[in-house]
Amino acid sequence: DFKSALATDCKPAFGVSTDELSTYIYNGITNWGEPVTHVLENGELLVNQTRTSDRTPLITGPPNSGKTALAATIAKNSDFPFLKICTPENMIGFHETAKCLAIKKIFDDAYKSCQSCIVLDDIERLLDYVPIGPRFSNLVLQTLLVLLKKNPPPGRKLLIVGTSSRREILEEMGMLSCFSAVVHVSCLSTREHLTSALDDLSIFNQEELSRIDKSIGERRLWIGIKKLIVLAETARQTETDFQVSKFLSLLEEEGGLEMREF
Amino acid sequence: DFKSALATDCKPAFGVSTDELSTYIYNGITNWGEPVTHVLENGELLVNQTRTSDRTPLITGPPNSGKTALAATIAKNSDFPFLKICTPENMIGFHETAKCLAIKKIFDDAYKSCQSCIVLDDIERLLDYVPIGPRFSNLVLQTLLVLLKKNPPPGRKLLIVGTSSRREILEEMGMLSCFSAVVHVSCLSTREHLTSALDDLSIFNQEELSRIDKSIGERRLWIGIKKLIVLAETARQTETDFQVSKFLSLLEEEGGLEMREF
Amino acid sequence: DFKSALATDCKPAFGVSTDELSTYIYNGITNWGEPVTHVLENGELLVNQTRTSDRTPLITGPPNSGKTALAATIAKNSDFPFLKICTPENMIGFHETAKCLAIKKIFDDAYKSCQSCIVLDDIERLLDYVPIGPRFSNLVLQTLLVLLKKNPPPGRKLLIVGTSSRREILEEMGMLSCFSAVVHVSCLSTREHLTSALDDLSIFNQEELSRIDKSIGERRLWIGIKKLIVLAETARQTETDFQVSKFLSLLEEEGGLEMREF
Amino acid sequence: DFKSALATDCKPAFGVSTDELSTYIYNGITNWGEPVTHVLENGELLVNQTRTSDRTPLITGPPNSGKTALAATIAKNSDFPFLKICTPENMIGFHETAKCLAIKKIFDDAYKSCQSCIVLDDIERLLDYVPIGPRFSNLVLQTLLVLLKKNPPPGRKLLIVGTSSRREILEEMGMLSCFSAVVHVSCLSTREHLTSALDDLSIFNQEELSRIDKSIGERRLWIGIKKLIVLAETARQTETDFQVSKFLSLLEEEGGLEMREF
Amino acid sequence: DFKSALATDCKPAFGVSTDELSTYIYNGITNWGEPVTHVLENGELLVNQTRTSDRTPLITGPPNSGKTALAATIAKNSDFPFLKICTPENMIGFHETAKCLAIKKIFDDAYKSCQSCIVLDDIERLLDYVPIGPRFSNLVLQTLLVLLKKNPPPGRKLLIVGTSSRREILEEMGMLSCFSAVVHVSCLSTREHLTSALDDLSIFNQEELSRIDKSIGERRLWIGIKKLIVLAETARQTETDFQVSKFLSLLEEEGGLEMREF
Amino acid sequence: DFKSALATDCKPAFGVSTDELSTYIYNGITNWGEPVTHVLENGELLVNQTRTSDRTPLITGPPNSGKTALAATIAKNSDFPFLKICTPENMIGFHETAKCLAIKKIFDDAYKSCQSCIVLDDIERLLDYVPIGPRFSNLVLQTLLVLLKKNPPPGRKLLIVGTSSRREILEEMGMLSCFSAVVHVSCLSTREHLTSALDDLSIFNQEELSRIDKSIGERRLWIGIKKLIVLAETARQTETDFQVSKFLSLLEEEGGLEMREF
Ligand SMILES: Nc1ncnc2c1ncn2[C@@H]1O[C@H](COP(=O)(O)OP(=O)(O)OP(=O)(O)O)[C@@H](O)[C@H]1O
Ligand SMILES: Nc1ncnc2c1ncn2[C@@H]1O[C@H](COP(=O)(O)OP(=O)(O)OP(=O)(O)O)[C@@H](O)[C@H]1O
Ligand SMILES: Nc1ncnc2c1ncn2[C@@H]1O[C@H](COP(=O)(O)OP(=O)(O)OP(=O)(O)O)[C@@H](O)[C@H]1O
Ligand SMILES: Nc1ncnc2c1ncn2[C@@H]1O[C@H](COP(=O)(O)OP(=O)(O)OP(=O)(O)O)[C@@H](O)[C@H]1O
Ligand SMILES: Nc1ncnc2c1ncn2[C@@H]1O[C@H](COP(=O)(O)OP(=O)(O)OP(=O)(O)O)[C@@H](O)[C@H]1O
Ligand SMILES: Nc1ncnc2c1ncn2[C@@H]1O[C@H](COP(=O)(O)OP(=O)(O)OP(=O)(O)O)[C@@H](O)[C@H]1O
Ligand SMILES: [Mg+2]
Ligand SMILES: [Mg+2]
Ligand SMILES: [Mg+2]
Ligand SMILES: [Mg+2]
Ligand SMILES: [Mg+2]
Ligand SMILES: [Mg+2]
Repeated sequence: DFKSALATDCKPAFGVSTDELSTYIYNGITNWGEPVTHVLENGELLVNQTRTSDRTPLITGPPNSGKTALAATIAKNSDFPFLKICTPENMIGFHETAKCLAIKKIFDDAYKSCQSCIVLDDIERLLDYVPIGPRFSNLVLQTLLVLLKKNPPPGRKLLIVGTSSRREILEEMGMLSCFSAVVHVSCLSTREHLTSALDDLSIFNQEELSRIDKSIGERRLWIGIKKLIVLAETARQTETDFQVSKFLSLLEEEGGLEMREF
Repeated sequence: DFKSALATDCKPAFGVSTDELSTYIYNGITNWGEPVTHVLENGELLVNQTRTSDRTPLITGPPNSGKTALAATIAKNSDFPFLKICTPENMIGFHETAKCLAIKKIFDDAYKSCQSCIVLDDIERLLDYVPIGPRFSNLVLQTLLVLLKKNPPPGRKLLIVGTSSRREILEEMGMLSCFSAVVHVSCLSTREHLTSALDDLSIFNQEELSRIDKSIGERRLWIGIKKLIVLAETARQTETDFQVSKFLSLLEEEGGLEMREF
Repeated sequence: DFKSALATDCKPAFGVSTDELSTYIYNGITNWGEPVTHVLENGELLVNQTRTSDRTPLITGPPNSGKTALAATIAKNSDFPFLKICTPENMIGFHETAKCLAIKKIFDDAYKSCQSCIVLDDIERLLDYVPIGPRFSNLVLQTLLVLLKKNPPPGRKLLIVGTSSRREILEEMGMLSCFSAVVHVSCLSTREHLTSALDDLSIFNQEELSRIDKSIGERRLWIGIKKLIVLAETARQTETDFQVSKFLSLLEEEGGLEMREF
Repeated sequence: DFKSALATDCKPAFGVSTDELSTYIYNGITNWGEPVTHVLENGELLVNQTRTSDRTPLITGPPNSGKTALAATIAKNSDFPFLKICTPENMIGFHETAKCLAIKKIFDDAYKSCQSCIVLDDIERLLDYVPIGPRFSNLVLQTLLVLLKKNPPPGRKLLIVGTSSRREILEEMGMLSCFSAVVHVSCLSTREHLTSALDDLSIFNQEELSRIDKSIGERRLWIGIKKLIVLAETARQTETDFQVSKFLSLLEEEGGLEMREF
Repeated sequence: DFKSALATDCKPAFGVSTDELSTYIYNGITNWGEPVTHVLENGELLVNQTRTSDRTPLITGPPNSGKTALAATIAKNSDFPFLKICTPENMIGFHETAKCLAIKKIFDDAYKSCQSCIVLDDIERLLDYVPIGPRFSNLVLQTLLVLLKKNPPPGRKLLIVGTSSRREILEEMGMLSCFSAVVHVSCLSTREHLTSALDDLSIFNQEELSRIDKSIGERRLWIGIKKLIVLAETARQTETDFQVSKFLSLLEEEGGLEMREF
Repeated sequence: DFKSALATDCKPAFGVSTDELSTYIYNGITNWGEPVTHVLENGELLVNQTRTSDRTPLITGPPNSGKTALAATIAKNSDFPFLKICTPENMIGFHETAKCLAIKKIFDDAYKSCQSCIVLDDIERLLDYVPIGPRFSNLVLQTLLVLLKKNPPPGRKLLIVGTSSRREILEEMGMLSCFSAVVHVSCLSTREHLTSALDDLSIFNQEELSRIDKSIGERRLWIGIKKLIVLAETARQTETDFQVSKFLSLLEEEGGLEMREF
């Protein structure tokens, strides 16, 4: 039996940084509809799977769709003794060598714990990717390609969760095949999604919600949860009477809601 | 309520550099017509919004149209305890690493204050952009992309105002979507704009203004406020009697006024 | 006779790293069908040949097909006093000069022993290859080209075994002709391959195996041995009753098994 | 009145380098015809304008047409307490960082004086421009773009005079719009231009001049003043009797004078 | 007489490295047919010529055709007091500056001896050439171009022998014209070539040779002498009875012998 | 009179390196025909001219045509107190910065003497030019462009003589216009050229010369003087009776003489 080597009592080499991860789920996880349910279900499955096997999910989706928050949630739910987010925010202005060292350090630390989880957030940013050229750091790319394929030391488990809004680029670079599953998150696209999310966030009361719902009617809707929260917060700064109309006009200006025809 | 964390009494970590900002509004803000009113209204809205939310407006417009002055005005009007302009003028000859460090420093300082405003002036210059190639600093681009998306620490507010005369480039680089609103400023394009601006700047008297107005007639006009002020100042150096004709010929030479047909 | 120079009693200059090699054959070598038999036969031949001559086989095949494990097996079977795997995993974030030095060091050590074997694993990764551009380290390429052609000192034998999943790239770079034989490993592609492999790995019992076999029926199958083992392990974590169906659905999700038509 | 800030009695921070500038006008300024008159007039205007405003003229023209000498003349005529020529001759073999620092130093010094004038000579050379590629130093380009747009400190005046023989390149790089006026200098193109210039330079006597004039007749002429002076000097080294014919044949060889038909 | 300067009694500045050169002719030089005779004749001529003049032959030919061994033989036969092989094997992982210094050092040493011979082996490898791009070290190229054209100090003789399997590349780079003669070596292409070579190498006895000869019949043959020796050695490791058939099948697998039709 | 500044009694700042220059004219200058006469005449003229003016001739011509020797001759004939050859041979393996410094040093030294002459030999090699790309050192190019246009200090004379076999490249790079005259040297192309050159070099006696002349007959001839001397020297090493036929066959092999038809 090739799993006997997994010592279930190995002790955490480094403290858990659950707190750091929590800042990436600042507004909680609202279950605004089927697309979320689907992801969360999958996420839980992934976490369960990884307890005993090496799964490497990639969370893709448009900007603002909630990728980072979901990846952080999956990581937290793992209850693994070692949790770490590898994010471009912590590597601003790093040259590629420094970036590679920082990334390698995270993995080396993870290997020292028996069960670890690393979130590779915003992979195209970790790669310094820009569509013009295109340009990107090949050194970081090669580092990620090797680390994603490398087996952790015998008896250790490592769950890697990636996020990206440019799935096609990862494919072109040969990185997609390093992930064992691709979980796609979506924007909110129906009245029901919107009302459900706003309700959950307790930003508007029932009467306001029904006015928003009516106003939207058959118009097309396409908005990421991250941006939705910003817009709702903005609207709430105006006087009570204007909050609903302000919210709707912000949604239109942002391009998230089809303009009303006259 | 997710806004309770915002401590309204946190103290300014660094002094306000209102004075530095003022040098970018050396000739004040003249309301020469509808396009300005529109921007100013929006600007005020933006400032109000940002007090309670994270808005990131981008001010676009042709060279000399007054972008920097407007961005500085929005920043000043915020009355935030931390104000800073991040401008290529302060980074002359910096290599990209030095530039990134300087930019990061400004953001790190801003995060220490509870309410901050940063002007990212002349973004294509910050990026060392040149259309031949095109070439630009990818390291600076990646730094800006990350900083524009990064959330300030909980309870802190950060208003970022960008300016650029090459909106399409920012789009191509995937930076446009980091801004929550695009405010376009225009050149002066009608007799009324011109007379109104010159009147406001008290460069010519009423009689002179009416001669200018008459002389322009139906000719096409297209001049940025920054250049207009330079030309008017130049004309005023000649003898009193020739100031109006000098001003008009300078305007023609500069290409701001259609040549008179004969 | 030009082979008299080969002293058969020269002593190993450095210890054998059989243990390190073994970690690359963590799940053993399952003989799941003709394609494996073929390779193993060839491998044995190669090892025998190299005892007296300089052969340089390249093991190619799709990702997850078992290339590294097979290369490590050939190396171990040689019973040579010096064994070493040259793998990108040990050179993460190395700049090209550092990489070249590390590679050269391995060869220099090998030359000191009378009979040595070096595995050059994942050559396109050693080269920092990425299809966009394409980009790769020319310095590493030149180093490998020279080392692959260089004769070991008189009386020394050096078996070099390469692995790659991008044979066409090695050809384009003029590296393919440096290998004296290309051994292709394949994915599992028939019911018999699958049942045989699973049987060997003792993951499912006979009853389960026959259910899997029946379920696959005439559906197309294409799965690498490395991935197969991961999927089987994952399935085994679910409750006993669901293991077979979980395994089959994982196989489908992964794209390794044609979806069932309805 | 926004000009009250200009203190007319601020003292020169650094000595005037009129002497250095003079070496660039070694052969004086000959008024050989209308094109020169035009430029000189403009130049004087520009100097007068800059006393009270910020003008940034660019002097363009073919190689050898006298651009540098004219720019130096405009600078000298300004009678400003700070004068400096920023020329590639002083930056031979400088890497771009060193070049940027040297350029910035000149501007920083200029800002310390109340009225300054900087000649940016041979801009395409400052940029290390070469048409193959094209290649150029983007760091120097960005430095110049920023310095050309930067306002001097309040109450300071800075006249920048540029020279270039590749106007279209500056346009492509977006640098042309940084100049407020383009003054084009021309080559000598008529018999009258030539006789007038040679007369002024007192190289030939009246009898010789009339022989030259007659010999030219209706042939096309196109020669820069800088080259003309070199050719005339060369001709004067031969024996007195052959000076005129030598001069004419040099002019033909150089391609400055259409060959005589037979 | 311009050759009187050549002091025939100048003493060797550095010891001869005949031994080093010999390792490149490990299996001797077999005269397997007319193509070899031709080269050797030429080689001798070249050596004779160089005693009194500066000849710079380039030995070209397909991989494994014996270029290096022939160049080393020409060098040894010169009996010059200074002999040196400049080979990529001694410059593994060198950056271009280090490579240039190493090459220059060899030439500087050679100039100190009155009669010297340098083998520039595998020139495309010295240049770090790769067809993708193409890429190569321009610094090394320029160094070789200069050194190949540079005259040795008066009274010194320097024979330079180059080898390359990419003649067309040297042409494209303008290096071919630096060689005074191109000597092409070929692969073995007839039964007679093969039998003669094997006979010379004493690997098979007469009976075996005749079986090989018969088996080849009219099939096309194309094999380099270097590879041929490896294959023959490999075949000899099998049991006596199978050596001939093993040899023939290796030859076929290697692509050196047309497959038998059935 | 603008030449009064030229002090004719200024003393040489650095010793003359006539000896160094002589090594580049090792075989003297043979006047083998009209093309040489033309160049020498021009050369003398150029030297005379430069005594009183700034001339910058460029000597172009095919490889081996004698460019360097002619440039060195012009320099030596100037009898100037400062003579220097700036040649790629002295800058082997230099990186571009080192090259620029070395070149600048030569010019700085030259400026210290009242009359100086610099030979810029093999300009495309100084530029590290290679047609693939093309690639070249822009830093060296810019350095040469500036130095070629820079006026020496008042009262100093500097004669610059360039050589190049790629005139069209210098044109493309905008360097050709920096030279005031282009002197083209040619290969030997007639029987008379050849006989005259060989006669002058005293390599063959009259009887041999007439046999060579007869043998050439109407066949096309195209050979540089540098290569011709090498071939003649080589032929002289054979036995007396074969020298003529050896010489002719070498000439044919080298491609310098059309093959005889049969
Ligand atoms: N169902 C949900 N899924 C994801 N995030 C949610 C959900 N409900 C609420 N949120 C909140 O929405 C925000 C999502 O922001 P997040 O940074 O994850 O978006 P993102 O897709 O990573 O954005 P970006 O494209 O900028 O990387 C978080 O503050 C999170 O707490
Ligand atoms: N309505 C106005 N809007 C903007 N600027 C104004 C206005 N009225 C007067 N000004 C003055 O015009 C000048 C505008 O210059 P500013 O530097 O902002 O232009 P810009 O568009 O940033 O130019 P550039 O394209 O060079 O960056 C300032 O001096 C400002 O005080
Ligand atoms: N017949 C077999 N051939 C190869 N590997 C086998 C075989 N049977 C079982 N295995 C096991 O399968 C795994 C193969 O993984 P390996 O790393 O060699 O694949 P790979 O082709 O190198 O993958 P990658 O494309 O990621 O480099 C090893 O754990 C090995 O023990
Ligand atoms: N009318 C004139 N305009 C300009 N220069 C003149 C004039 N009359 C005489 N000169 C002399 O001609 C020379 C012009 O040389 P200058 O270096 O200015 O030319 P340039 O166009 O800058 O050349 P380049 O293209 O090489 O930069 C100077 O020596 C100057 O004294
Ligand atoms: N006639 C021959 N010519 C050349 N080499 C021969 C000949 N006969 C026997 N040999 C042996 O064949 C081998 C030739 O190998 P060599 O390294 O010279 O080939 P190469 O063409 O340089 O190969 P590569 O393309 O890898 O550089 C040497 O071991 C040499 O001793
Ligand atoms: N008329 C002549 N012109 C030039 N060189 C001559 C002449 N007569 C004899 N020689 C001799 O011919 C040789 C010419 O070689 P040189 O190096 O000048 O040629 P090159 O054209 O510079 O060659 P490369 O193209 O390699 O730079 C010298 O040794 C010189 O002494
Ligand atoms: Mg994110
Ligand atoms: Mg601005
Ligand atoms: Mg592998
Ligand atoms: Mg000039
Ligand atoms: Mg070789
Ligand atoms: Mg030469």
